[in-house]
Amino acid sequence: MIKKTVIRDMRYALDGNAGSDAVHRKPVYSYAVTQLIDDSGITGVGFAFTLGEGNDLVCKAAQYYARQLVGKDIEETMADFGQLFRQLSDDPQFRWLGPHKGVVQLALASVTNACYDLWAKKRGLPLWKLLNDLAPEELIATLDFSYLEDELTREQALAILVAEQQGKTAREQILTSGYPGYDTSIGWFNYSDEKVRENCHKAIAEGFKAMKLKVGSEDFNRDIRRAFIVREVAGEDVKVMLDANQQWNLPQAIEICGQLKSMNPYWIEEPTHPDDILAHQQLAQIIAPVKIALGEHVPNKVLFKNYLQAGAAAFIQVDAVRVGGVSEFLTVSLLCKKFGIPVVPHVGDMGQLHQHLVLFNHISMGHEALFLEHIPHLKQHFAHPAQITGGFYQTPMEPGSSCDLLALKD
Amino acid sequence: MIKKTVIRDMRYALDGNAGSDAVHRKPVYSYAVTQLIDDSGITGVGFAFTLGEGNDLVCKAAQYYARQLVGKDIEETMADFGQLFRQLSDDPQFRWLGPHKGVVQLALASVTNACYDLWAKKRGLPLWKLLNDLAPEELIATLDFSYLEDELTREQALAILVAEQQGKTAREQILTSGYPGYDTSIGWFNYSDEKVRENCHKAIAEGFKAMKLKVGSEDFNRDIRRAFIVREVAGEDVKVMLDANQQWNLPQAIEICGQLKSMNPYWIEEPTHPDDILAHQQLAQIIAPVKIALGEHVPNKVLFKNYLQAGAAAFIQVDAVRVGGVSEFLTVSLLCKKFGIPVVPHVGDMGQLHQHLVLFNHISMGHEALFLEHIPHLKQHFAHPAQITGGFYQTPMEPGSSCDLLALKD
Repeated sequence: MIKKTVIRDMRYALDGNAGSDAVHRKPVYSYAVTQLIDDSGITGVGFAFTLGEGNDLVCKAAQYYARQLVGKDIEETMADFGQLFRQLSDDPQFRWLGPHKGVVQLALASVTNACYDLWAKKRGLPLWKLLNDLAPEELIATLDFSYLEDELTREQALAILVAEQQGKTAREQILTSGYPGYDTSIGWFNYSDEKVRENCHKAIAEGFKAMKLKVGSEDFNRDIRRAFIVREVAGEDVKVMLDANQQWNLPQAIEICGQLKSMNPYWIEEPTHPDDILAHQQLAQIIAPVKIALGEHVPNKVLFKNYLQAGAAAFIQVDAVRVGGVSEFLTVSLLCKKFGIPVVPHVGDMGQLHQHLVLFNHISMGHEALFLEHIPHLKQHFAHPAQITGGFYQTPMEPGSSCDLLALKD
Repeated sequence: MIKKTVIRDMRYALDGNAGSDAVHRKPVYSYAVTQLIDDSGITGVGFAFTLGEGNDLVCKAAQYYARQLVGKDIEETMADFGQLFRQLSDDPQFRWLGPHKGVVQLALASVTNACYDLWAKKRGLPLWKLLNDLAPEELIATLDFSYLEDELTREQALAILVAEQQGKTAREQILTSGYPGYDTSIGWFNYSDEKVRENCHKAIAEGFKAMKLKVGSEDFNRDIRRAFIVREVAGEDVKVMLDANQQWNLPQAIEICGQLKSMNPYWIEEPTHPDDILAHQQLAQIIAPVKIALGEHVPNKVLFKNYLQAGAAAFIQVDAVRVGGVSEFLTVSLLCKKFGIPVVPHVGDMGQLHQHLVLFNHISMGHEALFLEHIPHLKQHFAHPAQITGGFYQTPMEPGSSCDLLALKD
């Protein structure tokens, strides 16, 4: 039984210019952390990610949700979590602050993730194993399909999982090979050309087959110059992704994406405003075969449904510390599976939680194991930091979702 | 010069079942209030609306924005407010909590509205007059057109205002006739059939030619029964709007809207999730000629642009205490003007601020003076409550935006 909840506001300054992009020039990677303290002595830990300022607001909202869990048994809670998720996210007064977006949605992510973590820890299993071992009906019971019915009913989602039971054993091979990673840290926005070049070489030496550069400069030529530097160092066989962090309006995006086409980006990420479904749809048609990736700022399953229906994104970067936690991440993953679109999470969690989720997506949902973003910056703050060897995430074996922060023990 | 800012968390319990709808069963109408205290002795007042829980989060976020205004001169600030608006809404760290939605956007509304109020009070003018007297260039300088460029550039917006200079004088006639209102309070969700019937009679006796009923019951038959009661009492010449408050998913909306068609609703409001642009687009096509109204939960201009581009709404209910305040309300109004879609604000402010804005929209932007929602519940709490006579809003003449709350004087 959950006897107590503690919310913590954890902020980590980054070294140098790490983490900088076209919008976020001086981020302070921060977590609004929910701890669910069980009377068994086990603590479930979950968090949402922010860039510093306002992390306290998410903490306060998380407290509002978390206190509703006191007195609940985690097994009973998770047996019908989809129902609870809907109830919390549709709270008659609090809902106005969203709905299903912004501070309240981040807070819901924090609390939801703590529930899944506590569940896995109490069963003594890493989260990926807990999820993979669940019967399809049990997994589906943790999800909320409201407002998706025109594209994906509960029954259709269940049918996907049942169909994918076949082939699970073969796909479990990934547990030993490791899940491929890609390197996001070669080209943060404020890095010099020299540093980008040097990081490229380093990433390749470490075994990465894919890497990402931040673009979105006021000076288009800077973006183009740096993109070609990366391509030159990486060669043709390495996938290079470009991330504009919403810096362009549609006419600008059309122009610059046209110019970036010739360096053959694997995708162009967040070319414009994250709410602008129809701009992305139009851009996708114009710049094809260059593909668009997005999702780190898309707050809920309804907006993802719209992006998928519009054919506006070829890669979905849903983030379980941005949408309403593991539950909504899995719901969106099922939606993507229906549309045949890969899920390549943004990792506000530095990959700690997502390494579990992509294993589940691949093994139990039949998603392609494309690659998972890798950002090393907060490694030293986690009790069980993700291990990357030769460019591959090594399968985490400790119970839970790998979200324990060292400082929480203080 | 603004010498100090004070943020107040004001909450007002409602009597009986007033304010109830299909989602919000026990709302506490609340304002996150920004006061900008000028060294001239004048205080600018603006607010965002919430339903109670979490109003404190909006206050806290408003404090973050407001403190950046200390030391600024309001005339200088408003001479280039569009720039400041963009800067605040794209704050490198705080922006992550949206962007442009949820708690941070509500907070921006509160602060923005206080700026416009202070500006008008210092000029000794009611806000509608201040806005109407501005040169088109001056008005446009208070707006931010970022991410709208594919549909409406700053230059195109200016051209609209310049073109509408012609006919302004004729349209000023509305200042004496008053702006038509419609009655939202005949049929709150929890009201009995008898009370709805009685309120209908009362509204007609008071001169209203349009009124709104809350629908979205779990029992579809209840909605249908009540809708026909209103039509029966109102007769064929009164406009009757139905408001579902997002209660239906798309398949349900298609079914029930089909059944409600025969009572000839003037519009059906918020039939489904407020982020679901493509569901509204599909529904609009299926239920035509019945029309859809929405906007009270749409947080920013980018999403409104998508709704307009998709032809998914025939009436736009943008609310200046939900989007980023007066500035973004006017930007969205210009966008609607370009698309030929009427603006019929949702009035989280109980019409206090919006009575000014619809006068501007009609006189200077050439929008049709359709009608403005009227909700009487907080009348007694305002220093200058909106006056409705014979179903018409009487033009407010006091300086400012009519948002002074009596309790702020404590």
